[in-house]
Amino acid sequence: MSIKVGIVGYGTIGKRVADGVAASPGMEVAGVTGRRYACKMDIARQRGYPVYVAPDGASEFQDRGFEVGGTMEDLCEEADIIVDATPSKVPAQNMPLYEAKGVKAIVQGGEDHALTGFSFSSLANYEEALNREHARVVSCNTTGLSRLISTLDGAYGVENVFVTLIRRAADPKESKKGPINAVKPVMGVSHHGPDVMTVMPHINIYSMAVAVPHTLSHVHTLRVRLETPPTKRELVELFDSTPRIVLRKGKEGFSDTAQIAEYYRDFRPRYDMPELFIWDEPLDVVDNYAYIMANVHQESIVVPENIDCIKAMCGMETDKMKAIYETDKALGIAKDKRCYT
Amino acid sequence: MSIKVGIVGYGTIGKRVADGVAASPGMEVAGVTGRRYACKMDIARQRGYPVYVAPDGASEFQDRGFEVGGTMEDLCEEADIIVDATPSKVPAQNMPLYEAKGVKAIVQGGEDHALTGFSFSSLANYEEALNREHARVVSCNTTGLSRLISTLDGAYGVENVFVTLIRRAADPKESKKGPINAVKPVMGVSHHGPDVMTVMPHINIYSMAVAVPHTLSHVHTLRVRLETPPTKRELVELFDSTPRIVLRKGKEGFSDTAQIAEYYRDFRPRYDMPELFIWDEPLDVVDNYAYIMANVHQESIVVPENIDCIKAMCGMETDKMKAIYETDKALGIAKDKRCYT
Repeated sequence: MSIKVGIVGYGTIGKRVADGVAASPGMEVAGVTGRRYACKMDIARQRGYPVYVAPDGASEFQDRGFEVGGTMEDLCEEADIIVDATPSKVPAQNMPLYEAKGVKAIVQGGEDHALTGFSFSSLANYEEALNREHARVVSCNTTGLSRLISTLDGAYGVENVFVTLIRRAADPKESKKGPINAVKPVMGVSHHGPDVMTVMPHINIYSMAVAVPHTLSHVHTLRVRLETPPTKRELVELFDSTPRIVLRKGKEGFSDTAQIAEYYRDFRPRYDMPELFIWDEPLDVVDNYAYIMANVHQESIVVPENIDCIKAMCGMETDKMKAIYETDKALGIAKDKRCYT
Repeated sequence: MSIKVGIVGYGTIGKRVADGVAASPGMEVAGVTGRRYACKMDIARQRGYPVYVAPDGASEFQDRGFEVGGTMEDLCEEADIIVDATPSKVPAQNMPLYEAKGVKAIVQGGEDHALTGFSFSSLANYEEALNREHARVVSCNTTGLSRLISTLDGAYGVENVFVTLIRRAADPKESKKGPINAVKPVMGVSHHGPDVMTVMPHINIYSMAVAVPHTLSHVHTLRVRLETPPTKRELVELFDSTPRIVLRKGKEGFSDTAQIAEYYRDFRPRYDMPELFIWDEPLDVVDNYAYIMANVHQESIVVPENIDCIKAMCGMETDKMKAIYETDKALGIAKDKRCYT
């Protein structure tokens, strides 16, 4: 029996999760929601995803030859689990419907932790998601940080973390947001540190953030105090053997975020990079501190975690590393199998 | 017998032409050249393109497990035709080698017309390329303009053209070029108008150009005086029935260059768009003038013309529209077959 996944909100995250579901054995896309016709819905149709539409929008789709599966309410009947990737604050309005329909629901990191009472990141807390009704997959930045910090914590013990986030101003498709010629600080502590603590409450972390005129990715600089610090070589080996973390040299064609995107344009759909990318050259260990610079592809990094979360909540796989391995294989991002033990 | 195509210069254009050759029946990639190892060469290897390297760079590739086919000189022996996509001015240095080896050669639009004495754009002058030894495929902007103006000229007679080019500052992978916060005029007439006249000497065209802080595409605005002006509806029908021109509405999800790129990210490798894109809403006809706004994807628009040019120079196909149709089918950009009559 295949798990039927409904995708509510066919935008940046929703369309990628739909493709991830379609690629994953044991689950299928029950449908995606659309409000008004736009060219992106042609993509959904080409991929065979049933489209569910609000009643006042149905004729617009039907006029263009779409077969409309029904409304969002119908999709909740059809699906075993909903991945809600609508704009921030909309999932809170949708949640009563999911509860009324008795359908499981995943929301994204733009929502408050309190909406589901549980925040998910695979490497950190996969098992806690097993058979849950509701979960929140944390945001792109928090996903990157959770992967990195849980890995370091397991290997060397993390005493504290200070991270600076150099955030992209907007996603590539957006032209109405900014800044376009300013560096814009978050005034006060950024929410990212506290957000990591929704996943790993025992981590002592402080974060600051600025937004810069750039769309491709977020860049993190970290100073991590470790209980038993490794050498740089050991750190490189740790990252090389960890799923969803890629470590490469800038001088090999990854000297900036534009070059990273260019490399992935050559062989990944949408130049997606669900892996956390770590630059080799700036990586260093001095005294008890590891210094790390990382790149987070904001549009795709949460996709594997959404797929994992579906698996856990629907009880498809109880073993964390097996779940992660199967997801990574399906998404085409698997490393050597030894990395999953 | 398959035509063997050597790609000299595996950058923005070279890698795309290589993929286009590999996708085209009747031709194959004899090899691509590399100077130093960079991650992009892994892509060439994954795709099975033999790598040809300067003698001082060979060990670097061999150490990484590449099978090196030989030097660029060896590639010239191996190939029937070379597509030289090296940086501007390098092809002029390479041309004596091609002549000495007796291999046909195509250079790109960054070179002077005089280097080959013939400038190519499929819809405008395919037949003139038949069995030539050397040709220059005109640049991205000139390719877009040549498609558009030759189409208008054939249908309505072009009396004169004034075009303004709003150029992208740099390609997406480049971070050392600018402007990054300025609009930079070309001081004097831009080279684009005269360049169109290397393809169609009878066209009366004047061009101005500015560069803007943007990487995705060039945008053209045109005022074209026509001998027998059509209605807007007729103009839409003309573009809809012309190969390699796509006309869409901004309001359907193409409201700016970022949205165009986002749409093509969803289903084209590297979000390439070899078609000239024309926006519907700004399209207009007033008195004898057509007003047109178009989008040129600078990285991919010349790829179909390079493939066509190989076909013509190697005598693979004498019929222009058949050549264009087969190229478009291979590249996945074919329109309805009736557009090719």
